[in-house]
Amino acid sequence: MEQPTIGVIGMAVMGKNLALNIESRGYTVAIYNRTGSKTEAVAKDHADKRLVPSYTIEDFVASLEKPRRIILMVKAGAGTDAVIKQLLPLLDKGDILIDGGNTNFHDTRRRNAELADSGINFIGMGVSGGELGALKGPSLMPGGQREAYNLVAPILEQISAKAEEDGAPCVSYIGPDGAGHYVKMVHNGIEYGDMELIAESYNLLRNLLGLDMSEIADIFNDWSKGELHSYLIDITAEILTRKDDLGSGKPIVDVILDRAGNKGTGKWSTQSAAELGVPQSVITESLYARYISAMKDERVAASKVLPKPVGKVDLPDKAEAVELIRKALYFSKVMSYAQGFEQMRVASEHYDWDLQYGEIASIWRAGCIIRAVFLQNITNAYDKNPALKNLLMDDYFQAIAKNYQEAVRDLVGLAAKAGVPVPAFMGAISYYDSYRAEVLPANMIQAQRDYFGAHTYERADRPGIFHYSWYTEQ
Amino acid sequence: MEQPTIGVIGMAVMGKNLALNIESRGYTVAIYNRTGSKTEAVAKDHADKRLVPSYTIEDFVASLEKPRRIILMVKAGAGTDAVIKQLLPLLDKGDILIDGGNTNFHDTRRRNAELADSGINFIGMGVSGGELGALKGPSLMPGGQREAYNLVAPILEQISAKAEEDGAPCVSYIGPDGAGHYVKMVHNGIEYGDMELIAESYNLLRNLLGLDMSEIADIFNDWSKGELHSYLIDITAEILTRKDDLGSGKPIVDVILDRAGNKGTGKWSTQSAAELGVPQSVITESLYARYISAMKDERVAASKVLPKPVGKVDLPDKAEAVELIRKALYFSKVMSYAQGFEQMRVASEHYDWDLQYGEIASIWRAGCIIRAVFLQNITNAYDKNPALKNLLMDDYFQAIAKNYQEAVRDLVGLAAKAGVPVPAFMGAISYYDSYRAEVLPANMIQAQRDYFGAHTYERADRPGIFHYSWYTEQ
Repeated sequence: MEQPTIGVIGMAVMGKNLALNIESRGYTVAIYNRTGSKTEAVAKDHADKRLVPSYTIEDFVASLEKPRRIILMVKAGAGTDAVIKQLLPLLDKGDILIDGGNTNFHDTRRRNAELADSGINFIGMGVSGGELGALKGPSLMPGGQREAYNLVAPILEQISAKAEEDGAPCVSYIGPDGAGHYVKMVHNGIEYGDMELIAESYNLLRNLLGLDMSEIADIFNDWSKGELHSYLIDITAEILTRKDDLGSGKPIVDVILDRAGNKGTGKWSTQSAAELGVPQSVITESLYARYISAMKDERVAASKVLPKPVGKVDLPDKAEAVELIRKALYFSKVMSYAQGFEQMRVASEHYDWDLQYGEIASIWRAGCIIRAVFLQNITNAYDKNPALKNLLMDDYFQAIAKNYQEAVRDLVGLAAKAGVPVPAFMGAISYYDSYRAEVLPANMIQAQRDYFGAHTYERADRPGIFHYSWYTEQ
Repeated sequence: MEQPTIGVIGMAVMGKNLALNIESRGYTVAIYNRTGSKTEAVAKDHADKRLVPSYTIEDFVASLEKPRRIILMVKAGAGTDAVIKQLLPLLDKGDILIDGGNTNFHDTRRRNAELADSGINFIGMGVSGGELGALKGPSLMPGGQREAYNLVAPILEQISAKAEEDGAPCVSYIGPDGAGHYVKMVHNGIEYGDMELIAESYNLLRNLLGLDMSEIADIFNDWSKGELHSYLIDITAEILTRKDDLGSGKPIVDVILDRAGNKGTGKWSTQSAAELGVPQSVITESLYARYISAMKDERVAASKVLPKPVGKVDLPDKAEAVELIRKALYFSKVMSYAQGFEQMRVASEHYDWDLQYGEIASIWRAGCIIRAVFLQNITNAYDKNPALKNLLMDDYFQAIAKNYQEAVRDLVGLAAKAGVPVPAFMGAISYYDSYRAEVLPANMIQAQRDYFGAHTYERADRPGIFHYSWYTEQ
């Protein structure tokens, strides 16, 4: 066999699938796993492939073409640091390490800086698409040294998903140091938002309108044929048609416990938004919705003593109500993406990354979990105006806001009246109404802060910093 | 003069006022500031007081009774570390450093552990009440070694505010290491929430009901006589009566720019809630409201192109609408405190602090910014049931939720319809409806996660971890 062009460390499902994906494009791939039996199993299961197993990390490194290209697919955190420590004495200047884990961008920034001292290139690469994506074509978000990226770009372009619209590979150089993992983090935050908005819509169809599962499946199926067309809407329609595989006869959704898990990226996204001063209500409310869902025992106890509302709910007829929900879902999705892209803009300025927003939307068009026709409109918006500050300032998104705002207003009123929680829809409409407010009541907050803490205030009529003598009569 | 019992480092307004407060209780107080001219000015302005100025840190330390008691009132962050580094070689085992700054609890945990290695006690103490509180009686939240706290407790009890209800000092041992600064951080988060809820109420009175400033002042004045009685409602009523002191003839609120600042504690509170898995929608939406307010230029530009709603708003008559707002404000305040106390409970378990929630509410009854009659009800709730998981499970708070929920439901519907942003009110009602939901649509989220990422799911009907074969026909 030829000398491997690239190696993959970590033979759990994501690493294995990525290795097989690369191999399928004509490359010979070195593979290594801390526990050798896993490496052996992969090599054995795929004996016809150009996979070169190694059972020591020294052999693995020695087997590679130079400059070495090594993709780490190991558990993010201490695991990554441990592998890097083992690798460091074996590498040469100019070698390229690519961390494809779900790594916190702060860690990637640190590792990129530390390894740069030894002349090692370090790329933090977001990989989205799950197991199947890794195997068939993920969306890839690599950040780090641009010249190092150029040396792996041909491989990454081949293994990545291709957009349906134009066949373009779903990979692009994102920016220096932690930029790739940051963008992946925001992608995942947006994914939390999309999923929560779908879950709230499902809940409204079920518990506000009282529809049955097959009707709801049909509605999502209809929606997926229109402007909402996306992977997550598609799989929702599919999920709703599936029956329990353990024989209860119920729809599978009805036997799944309503306690959502999370792997940390939504949390990081909220923490970074808070750090950078970016309002991110839809993603954060989606994160909190998962947290409340996890408090199942508390909720069951609370449901027995906290009364539901008794006020009358004036629902429109079914078709109209379904359309309200569809419009509210799309409106809220626009707000969520506006916030996510605003977050990337502020981060890009803060960390000096020069992110290309249109390109980012473009590489999300296929392969990743939030893939959707909708993303093309974001690319178009930034093509028209690369300096766009907020998606809501683009014509396309403005039109959605304008045409769908009454729907979301009516819907949150109905949901509140009926006692069906819609935290993400509410986060969306408050964001819209706050963002388009020439004057917000923050003047009262500043007056209070100046009153109790002498924090000073600015004036609307002239520049400068002022303090009012609250404790003396004027 | 007698040898100083205690010393204060940092003669900016908070340090100076705290030193004067201690002195006023009969103690001799050593004072020191990095820039000597400040120390000199304080000593000169208060020549009749028992203040002992030092102009080197060595003299300052040497002047103190042993074990030494030193309060740091310096800029939080690197400034605190720099002073500690200077002090360390001058201190003896058993000495007590008290950091009274607005310090991140992570830093306090680190410093407490590092100094413990040298036998120095380190207390991180939250101080609330602003400049006036520091001088006349703040609310104090000290955390660190309990035995060290006991050595300063008599002084802290004397300088702290006293509750009107029973004269009890507003200070209490909070818990080990960073517990004091954590509780102060949550206090400030709650303060963000209270302020935003007041700002939203003011905005609704003004822009939904169209009332003028003096009517609104009267309404807040009325409210402050009832169950909403609190410092922040009081000062709001007062602020609304004040005229511009620069001669515009307008109410001062109308000339203050609607761009809210922040000093970081609200942000930390949100970041910690996200870290610990606690839903904290009211505080976080209040933080984000400040962030959006700060985007003034963007908002002004957006206000010109993003249309307001045109739907008809059916307002009730004025008295009824005002009462809706009052009830919604109180309801939302209850949700905010329920979330804040839930956050402290989870943090207490996570960091092993054994926080006493009733005592914490009790020391917030006077001196601090969120002081309110309402807090006595929280103390009562924990007295009745020390193991209370959430304030909403207490009778008093349940009754408010029950009686006021229709008001907040109607109000958020009206506000949404009219386009007046109420992010914190909406965060409150979504929290209530989520918390009291026996079943949430998180089953859909888990189905999606299992579909695209094989993240597995739990079942409602039996224990265990399951994975559905989505890609094969059932």
